[in-house]
Amino acid sequence: MRPSKRAPEAMRPVSLERGVARYAEGSCLVKFGETHVLCAASLEEKAPGWLRGQGKGWVTAEYSMLPRATHERTRREVNFGKPSGRTQEIQRLVGRSLRAVVDLKMIGERQITVDCDVLQADGGTRTASITGAWVALHDCLVWMKARDMLKGPALKDHVAALSCGIYKGVPVLDLDYAEDSHAETDANFVMTGSGGIVEVQGTAEGAPFSEAELMTLLGLAKTGCAQLVELQKLAVA
Amino acid sequence: MRPSKRAPEAMRPVSLERGVARYAEGSCLVKFGETHVLCAASLEEKAPGWLRGQGKGWVTAEYSMLPRATHERTRREVNFGKPSGRTQEIQRLVGRSLRAVVDLKMIGERQITVDCDVLQADGGTRTASITGAWVALHDCLVWMKARDMLKGPALKDHVAALSCGIYKGVPVLDLDYAEDSHAETDANFVMTGSGGIVEVQGTAEGAPFSEAELMTLLGLAKTGCAQLVELQKLAVA
Amino acid sequence: MRPSKRAPEAMRPVSLERGVARYAEGSCLVKFGETHVLCAASLEEKAPGWLRGQGKGWVTAEYSMLPRATHERTRREVNFGKPSGRTQEIQRLVGRSLRAVVDLKMIGERQITVDCDVLQADGGTRTASITGAWVALHDCLVWMKARDMLKGPALKDHVAALSCGIYKGVPVLDLDYAEDSHAETDANFVMTGSGGIVEVQGTAEGAPFSEAELMTLLGLAKTGCAQLVELQKLAVA
Amino acid sequence: MRPSKRAPEAMRPVSLERGVARYAEGSCLVKFGETHVLCAASLEEKAPGWLRGQGKGWVTAEYSMLPRATHERTRREVNFGKPSGRTQEIQRLVGRSLRAVVDLKMIGERQITVDCDVLQADGGTRTASITGAWVALHDCLVWMKARDMLKGPALKDHVAALSCGIYKGVPVLDLDYAEDSHAETDANFVMTGSGGIVEVQGTAEGAPFSEAELMTLLGLAKTGCAQLVELQKLAVA
Amino acid sequence: MRPSKRAPEAMRPVSLERGVARYAEGSCLVKFGETHVLCAASLEEKAPGWLRGQGKGWVTAEYSMLPRATHERTRREVNFGKPSGRTQEIQRLVGRSLRAVVDLKMIGERQITVDCDVLQADGGTRTASITGAWVALHDCLVWMKARDMLKGPALKDHVAALSCGIYKGVPVLDLDYAEDSHAETDANFVMTGSGGIVEVQGTAEGAPFSEAELMTLLGLAKTGCAQLVELQKLAVA
Amino acid sequence: MRPSKRAPEAMRPVSLERGVARYAEGSCLVKFGETHVLCAASLEEKAPGWLRGQGKGWVTAEYSMLPRATHERTRREVNFGKPSGRTQEIQRLVGRSLRAVVDLKMIGERQITVDCDVLQADGGTRTASITGAWVALHDCLVWMKARDMLKGPALKDHVAALSCGIYKGVPVLDLDYAEDSHAETDANFVMTGSGGIVEVQGTAEGAPFSEAELMTLLGLAKTGCAQLVELQKLAVA
Repeated sequence: MRPSKRAPEAMRPVSLERGVARYAEGSCLVKFGETHVLCAASLEEKAPGWLRGQGKGWVTAEYSMLPRATHERTRREVNFGKPSGRTQEIQRLVGRSLRAVVDLKMIGERQITVDCDVLQADGGTRTASITGAWVALHDCLVWMKARDMLKGPALKDHVAALSCGIYKGVPVLDLDYAEDSHAETDANFVMTGSGGIVEVQGTAEGAPFSEAELMTLLGLAKTGCAQLVELQKLAVA
Repeated sequence: MRPSKRAPEAMRPVSLERGVARYAEGSCLVKFGETHVLCAASLEEKAPGWLRGQGKGWVTAEYSMLPRATHERTRREVNFGKPSGRTQEIQRLVGRSLRAVVDLKMIGERQITVDCDVLQADGGTRTASITGAWVALHDCLVWMKARDMLKGPALKDHVAALSCGIYKGVPVLDLDYAEDSHAETDANFVMTGSGGIVEVQGTAEGAPFSEAELMTLLGLAKTGCAQLVELQKLAVA
Repeated sequence: MRPSKRAPEAMRPVSLERGVARYAEGSCLVKFGETHVLCAASLEEKAPGWLRGQGKGWVTAEYSMLPRATHERTRREVNFGKPSGRTQEIQRLVGRSLRAVVDLKMIGERQITVDCDVLQADGGTRTASITGAWVALHDCLVWMKARDMLKGPALKDHVAALSCGIYKGVPVLDLDYAEDSHAETDANFVMTGSGGIVEVQGTAEGAPFSEAELMTLLGLAKTGCAQLVELQKLAVA
Repeated sequence: MRPSKRAPEAMRPVSLERGVARYAEGSCLVKFGETHVLCAASLEEKAPGWLRGQGKGWVTAEYSMLPRATHERTRREVNFGKPSGRTQEIQRLVGRSLRAVVDLKMIGERQITVDCDVLQADGGTRTASITGAWVALHDCLVWMKARDMLKGPALKDHVAALSCGIYKGVPVLDLDYAEDSHAETDANFVMTGSGGIVEVQGTAEGAPFSEAELMTLLGLAKTGCAQLVELQKLAVA
Repeated sequence: MRPSKRAPEAMRPVSLERGVARYAEGSCLVKFGETHVLCAASLEEKAPGWLRGQGKGWVTAEYSMLPRATHERTRREVNFGKPSGRTQEIQRLVGRSLRAVVDLKMIGERQITVDCDVLQADGGTRTASITGAWVALHDCLVWMKARDMLKGPALKDHVAALSCGIYKGVPVLDLDYAEDSHAETDANFVMTGSGGIVEVQGTAEGAPFSEAELMTLLGLAKTGCAQLVELQKLAVA
Repeated sequence: MRPSKRAPEAMRPVSLERGVARYAEGSCLVKFGETHVLCAASLEEKAPGWLRGQGKGWVTAEYSMLPRATHERTRREVNFGKPSGRTQEIQRLVGRSLRAVVDLKMIGERQITVDCDVLQADGGTRTASITGAWVALHDCLVWMKARDMLKGPALKDHVAALSCGIYKGVPVLDLDYAEDSHAETDANFVMTGSGGIVEVQGTAEGAPFSEAELMTLLGLAKTGCAQLVELQKLAVA
């Protein structure tokens, strides 16, 4: 039995609210149950230095949590002088996931940064960030298209993400914090609208897992990501 | 004529929404027009080191802005390795303002940290932070009282804050961003429910100002802070 | 009774010694009693980056204390990796105060930095810094004028500063360390030679203060700053 | 055709040389072709603070590259003030992989740190590090056993790692630098001696990959890791 | 001909003024011509952590330059986040030099820090620092003796320092800035009152130097240091 | 009797192995007994900014130790955010020593960086670094010559270094760790192939030393450096 009483293959209620950041070119407040992330896409008229002169742009992401997003207050990373290893891992993952579905040549020598700020955290903040960031990015590209800033279609597909894990021996979808902290295996899947895999990250927290278990988790994730993609379609419709 | 068409003595619409941060002991989403700040109070069962053994506690504050709270994206301070001078000034001001109305002996050897995270910024983020932080602090103290953690009445008074300024020669209340960036004089007032002054910070951005002008601004602030205190009373009623 | 036996409205003996830094374009060793600050103005043939091409210059300040300026040794800020919040607040205040009396267009695309290094600290280091920095800045501008580097009169007025406070219920002028650490209210005033207010910073350390008390402190500061301006005039005569 | 002319399922020549660091409790110079990593295990008689009093120990890893390990010199991370995100990701991965095969209760309240310093880098430094670090860790545990420092069998299994990828459309094993920089998909697998999966990290660098491709890569990795485990057995025999 | 017209074996005028820092346990303003260093000794009732329980104390030094001590303004090191390599070299040298003449057992488990802050720099700041720091340290030890804090005689000898160099082919004593920046060879000697060598640091800036030249420079330094020791004796008499 | 049983004037066995770093323009693994340093020279097609336009280049060095090079593991400096004072002293010394024998005009506007990474440390790492770095630099210059990148002969002489010290009252050559930690006096000499002195650094760890002792140590170093130069000649023959 999951602490939330959900069935093994059940996600938490998901909502995607657009246009929440007044000044951003695109934004989305994504909720996976009690996990809330504010995603805001910002357009900058300058590509990063190492890309200049190549006629294409860049999409990147930053990630942070408010100190009291969590059950216990966590210290701000600015007080340690640098983003933690975990923060860097997550923001690199979000950036890679978005770039997998963008044609960087179409946006010209510009940069889009999607900020994912976790207002409340109950597990799955990185997968919620990817799913919401896609909506913010989508709206930023719509904003650019309306201003004739795109050289052609820039968004190639949807991208969404979900965590899965083995909790008390049972493969389950979309772990919340209570499950996440006790799961034997924890895996994040990033998938496109057409069902391709962008990223798999599976870690045995306790005993190693088998090939069969990996396949079961992947199956759960495929079904879940397909649902997320439907919700994205509704959100931007 | 103010850009917002407000009368010189008119504040922006203010709202104070309690209980917005699920895990915090007290919280408040404060809005001064388009300036939105999420204030969350966190209780820690340990006073700061320099206070230990003195039988009293501490109240402090931290302040930050989301990168895209502003019209243009601003870089995260963690990437500079330290909070900016401006951030430090503001969080020290919020902390001092709150301590002015708390009896630190009543909370025991504990620390309450009020995080003020600006979700959207249209001027006056520090005064909104103080006004909202009082509500979060209030609720944290209620939470403590319900658990018999207070030695006696800890909250001595309300505290609220407003900015004033001289804009195109006219003293006006509660500057928004469009005014703030062009005001000749900019002053922040922090005042208690009983009308005492906790902090005055007045700066001539252009020509020096006179004693009479300072008095006019103080008069505006007094009226405005009294209104904010009434809103706080309604919010926590 | 003040610890120093001074009358409430009495400043400490003030001296302003010019030309103490052999290599600086302007310099002044200012003493407010046992508070000694070495102010040195340095001219740089380059405006800050964000100002380039605007045909005007910039005046800024930096502030630091020698480790054993104080009764107890304080650790050097370089060992913490960054200036403290207090240091940043003070150097921003000194810079703003000086810019209030300089016509930045007259100095061309250059920068003048006034370093205020506290050799000995007995309270009031920021107000002594402002008062002495004006002399160093004056002499730097004289140096520039002698070399035909000014486009016109650059120095619009004097600027000087004093602290006031309520000590054992009595409003007093120019707090020394013994008073400062026990004052109920602490206020710094920065004023021009013509009596305009450049900056007011008043803080209730204990109970909030009233409008009447603020006026009394302002009155003390006006008289005191007028005396400092007379001393500046003598110094640069 | 692979740049190295290797068959798709062929690893580079692997060697594991023990005892190369005179002062370390265990050490191994691991070579995967032209990728050379010096792994040294250090025993410290103190568990990390957050683990104290729990009667168990910790195994961790650190990772670094010599500046000229690479084709072009890379700047030392100490000059940036902190380890890069990539370095942190890798050292966390190596640590997790080792902990998956150690019974931390058996080593008592101690910490073993395995330093993985890349002397020469031709792709696959993280997988070589894990494979070599296991040998260094093994020898450290033997050293401890000889001194009666273990409460029982501490090493539960072997652990080894390999990268796979899709290069010019063909799934290949053990990517070198020439392949790695052009692979469409890049996946790292960490596996135990008994064939369990400890970690999977698959990333689409270009087009998303399919479930079938993931399975093919996993199959390659299983065969390869089994060979690495045989080499580890020979090395410590 | 030296730029200063001094004879090769002539030092600049040296003065040692005691008691210049009101709050320090010992202090000295040392001048070697236009090089001025304020040395202040601070006693702390606690030895460094690594020395605790050994029944002895520590003497250390810190060094810094005011930004406009130099011909051109130099940036404060706090803005780089750390002391420069040069600063660290000098403060380690001053500390070692002082410890060479102190019996650390006699001062108990305490630490004396001598701060050397360069007010004005015209070459030879490190040698002036050592020479003045000895006086500050002497007075701190006298202060401690007067309070019965010493277990016995703590100061074993004088220590003083001078630079020498080969300038336009001629060995000269006590280089000023004009010489220092053009000397072919630059050597610093730290010597005790009884003529022992505590430290030699000789560097060929241009062509290597010979054994004979090293001897000549040492001879100059011996004569000079003996004079400095006489001045120290007068100063503390 | 020395711990190693060596005669006072006997160095440890020295080896200089070229070409150990596959990708570097020049490299050398130098061993002074159990002290092993990997030296790698990297050519960069750009002089440092402060040198641009002067038609000459620069030679610099960096130094680091692997964490378990030493008897006890030392923490990586990257975790402190900056190179230690000791590291900076050493890398500046190595750089100065190499520049003493290079004609910087001949290498054009380029920079050569020699990285000295200590794989194993048993005393004398800085002298071994200098001695090995010369070989790496030599081979880098040969590499440049083969590509017609030199304007003329760039390498003017050999440079090598040795430590000497007074151990139990006896002057000895080439201190190992066991001696170094107990020597009364410790001196490093850097000398050219023609016998000139590039750098002398002598420090009294205990009692001051005399002129005669300094001469004896210099004599030992001269003989030793001459042997090192012979070994360099053999190595690059």
